[in-house]
Amino acid sequence: MFTFDLAFTSSSVHQEPAEEDSAMLTRLNQRRLLSAYVLEEFEFPSDVRFHELPLFPEWHLPVKLMVVLMAVTFLYTFLRDVLQPYVSQSRNDFYKIPILVMNKVLPWTSITLLATVYLPGILASLLQLHRGTKYSRFPAWLERWMSMRKQLGLLAFLLACLHAIYSLSYPMRRSYRYKLLNWAYQQVKQSKEDSWVEDDVWRMEIYVSLGILGLGVLALVAISSLPSVSDTLNWREFQCVQRILGYTALFLCTAHALIYGWRKWVESKYFVWYTPPSFILASFLPALVLLVKAVLTLPCLDRRLELIRGGWERPGRKRERDSL
Amino acid sequence: MFTFDLAFTSSSVHQEPAEEDSAMLTRLNQRRLLSAYVLEEFEFPSDVRFHELPLFPEWHLPVKLMVVLMAVTFLYTFLRDVLQPYVSQSRNDFYKIPILVMNKVLPWTSITLLATVYLPGILASLLQLHRGTKYSRFPAWLERWMSMRKQLGLLAFLLACLHAIYSLSYPMRRSYRYKLLNWAYQQVKQSKEDSWVEDDVWRMEIYVSLGILGLGVLALVAISSLPSVSDTLNWREFQCVQRILGYTALFLCTAHALIYGWRKWVESKYFVWYTPPSFILASFLPALVLLVKAVLTLPCLDRRLELIRGGWERPGRKRERDSL
Amino acid sequence: MFTFDLAFTSSSVHQEPAEEDSAMLTRLNQRRLLSAYVLEEFEFPSDVRFHELPLFPEWHLPVKLMVVLMAVTFLYTFLRDVLQPYVSQSRNDFYKIPILVMNKVLPWTSITLLATVYLPGILASLLQLHRGTKYSRFPAWLERWMSMRKQLGLLAFLLACLHAIYSLSYPMRRSYRYKLLNWAYQQVKQSKEDSWVEDDVWRMEIYVSLGILGLGVLALVAISSLPSVSDTLNWREFQCVQRILGYTALFLCTAHALIYGWRKWVESKYFVWYTPPSFILASFLPALVLLVKAVLTLPCLDRRLELIRGGWERPGRKRERDSL
Repeated sequence: MFTFDLAFTSSSVHQEPAEEDSAMLTRLNQRRLLSAYVLEEFEFPSDVRFHELPLFPEWHLPVKLMVVLMAVTFLYTFLRDVLQPYVSQSRNDFYKIPILVMNKVLPWTSITLLATVYLPGILASLLQLHRGTKYSRFPAWLERWMSMRKQLGLLAFLLACLHAIYSLSYPMRRSYRYKLLNWAYQQVKQSKEDSWVEDDVWRMEIYVSLGILGLGVLALVAISSLPSVSDTLNWREFQCVQRILGYTALFLCTAHALIYGWRKWVESKYFVWYTPPSFILASFLPALVLLVKAVLTLPCLDRRLELIRGGWERPGRKRERDSL
Repeated sequence: MFTFDLAFTSSSVHQEPAEEDSAMLTRLNQRRLLSAYVLEEFEFPSDVRFHELPLFPEWHLPVKLMVVLMAVTFLYTFLRDVLQPYVSQSRNDFYKIPILVMNKVLPWTSITLLATVYLPGILASLLQLHRGTKYSRFPAWLERWMSMRKQLGLLAFLLACLHAIYSLSYPMRRSYRYKLLNWAYQQVKQSKEDSWVEDDVWRMEIYVSLGILGLGVLALVAISSLPSVSDTLNWREFQCVQRILGYTALFLCTAHALIYGWRKWVESKYFVWYTPPSFILASFLPALVLLVKAVLTLPCLDRRLELIRGGWERPGRKRERDSL
Repeated sequence: MFTFDLAFTSSSVHQEPAEEDSAMLTRLNQRRLLSAYVLEEFEFPSDVRFHELPLFPEWHLPVKLMVVLMAVTFLYTFLRDVLQPYVSQSRNDFYKIPILVMNKVLPWTSITLLATVYLPGILASLLQLHRGTKYSRFPAWLERWMSMRKQLGLLAFLLACLHAIYSLSYPMRRSYRYKLLNWAYQQVKQSKEDSWVEDDVWRMEIYVSLGILGLGVLALVAISSLPSVSDTLNWREFQCVQRILGYTALFLCTAHALIYGWRKWVESKYFVWYTPPSFILASFLPALVLLVKAVLTLPCLDRRLELIRGGWERPGRKRERDSL
């Protein structure tokens, strides 16, 4: 079998290092990746200096960011939803941690990451408007950030999918069943004919629907960033998918979060320990991004940006450059 | 950083148009697509004539078709499920629009699109049987249609996925919870020991199971049409996936729709305003496709088709061609 | 249109067989695969010897294994969950077959296949430890097995996805609704204030959460084995994804199964007809794999393996080889 011939003839392979150029190695690589599903060390040709190979360099920072965000949001949600009722009413809600708390951490982190995908583009536009030219480099941190957008977006999508599955699993949980049975018991005891709350129904129907649509649009964006798919797109198609669909997804998800909140904005009982409900904090950044983006698409600013990106420069700028 | 070097040296790039051949451009393209997640205009090399690039030409017609179908099915469902109860019993069911109506529009459109994927192949077969030869072009509209099957199929799959998520979200909705509580209340008031309806249970178990299996098979077909996957398949494998799995999916989904209908066929209360329930209209076309396909696989017709596709012609035909 | 020009000029194509080399054929192939979604026979260039093409050779054995496993697990579950109650208490639970029985068959088969992905790697390590060298071929069956790991893993992932959808569909089923209503009725009749079972709640919250996380990690592994994705990974990245994430997924899924079981281990009422509950049988193999893997990562054994894979041989071995 190919895989193992490689491993066993590896000693002889050393004799002809000329043929072993990287291009050929990658070709082997490809063929191997298709042939094997799990790689044990002994399956490598021994001339691959294993520990010198990079390990997802472009993913380090995005993943770190995600982990930090998840930690912070977890702590915040844990304090509000689990610890507070335990301390104030000594109610034991620790059973909430595996699913209910998790499922506040996931969407919060997800939508924040999604916002950070579109934030740098906006900052760049503002910077160009301010400088009045495109012929000057962006600060290094901004360029670094822009180069991470793909990773940030894919992580946001992953968390969004998990969030969807967690949410869908709510009614199958025992905790939900027991609550339902107890509610039914209460309703009968109070002989309450109808427990329908029109306002509450509307809220849920809308935000669930928006959430699903948002996930669907986000899925299209994610699929379009599969190498084999993006290779078949031209500049314009790729930009259309990434920008138009991307902003649509961001808009749907933000609306999803805000309608989930409904009027908890004002009801003080949701401000336990004087902390705002998480959806307010979660939807702040994406809402800001959408707002600034909307301002930037105002005719006056948009035309100015068009000019700048077409190479036009504010007279002042031009002189500066020529004077160099 | 690569992305921006491109943008800033773009003026100089103009000097050497020779090197800027399309092949090289696409290579840049690829690298860029991998490096950037969202493209702002100013990230393009300025020699890309942006607005001259095509924008998903092969998707225009399929998407238009989908939008039209969704509009029609939405109107039909809205009239039957929301407006009719409001007019006749002045019952306010408008809360149904975001999810329940949406979730009739999605499967209806989805299965119709899926049927249109397999319809042209059947029409082509019938045409060949009628003409008794394969050496004559198909009408232009049929060839156009056949070239859209991939897009139609992928749209059908997208809508099927959304349909699945919408359906799974039913029991987590407040509206469902309140209904459940009220039903429980009623059952207690009527002191009804057991509300089990065997017939209804069987219906739901079967159509849910068929729906999930249908979605699973459809997913395999969709994955196999990812460029990088389909490139690894040979003619026979690709046809096997697309035809055998494809028809299996169509069959499962049609069965899913019909069993969902169960015996609403006959119960007149489902014919509000003399309109048939949507599942009848939805399952008509796919059922027809499957029926004709079944007829075409009858030995006699199948052998005839084999001959024609092997190059055989009905004697009459042959003379015609020679006489030219 | 390209597709059909091909079909109609196929007679002429026969004149130049030289140009029709496989490379060009595959190129046509690619272009065709992108242009057409369903292939009818008459769309082939007639010089493709259709029935001589291989049909997923590397999938035959894995799929056979899957089918056999599903048949066995189905029979076992059917006997325990449907036939036994019918025979012993003449309770009619046949409605369970389409979903509840299916949804025990799917996870059981899925986790078993996942275990068989990691078993051969472990056997190979043990063999190398025993032989004290890497310079001797593995038995043919083991090499064959290792070459099937990708297929086994993807099938496991497919079944895991179906399992997830089936599980999420539980509460939307009529059968569940009716049961819920009857439970509510019972609770009221017994005027039972609260039906909450802390222990049961915790069990479900944890195993659902673990299951979702397991599926998420497994999805990453599956995505990384898409050709176009795996081509962008280097040896180390690919191994990292396939081994670290893969074992994490196996661990999460096994924990998911064991916590699902909770303390059915000891409660004899789950041992109907003296057969153990399926989760015990299902989690046996994966648990074993994880255990042996854990042992193999003990410093002493790990260092020894490192040495062997670095080319070191147990003195005895060396002499043997030289004596040849």
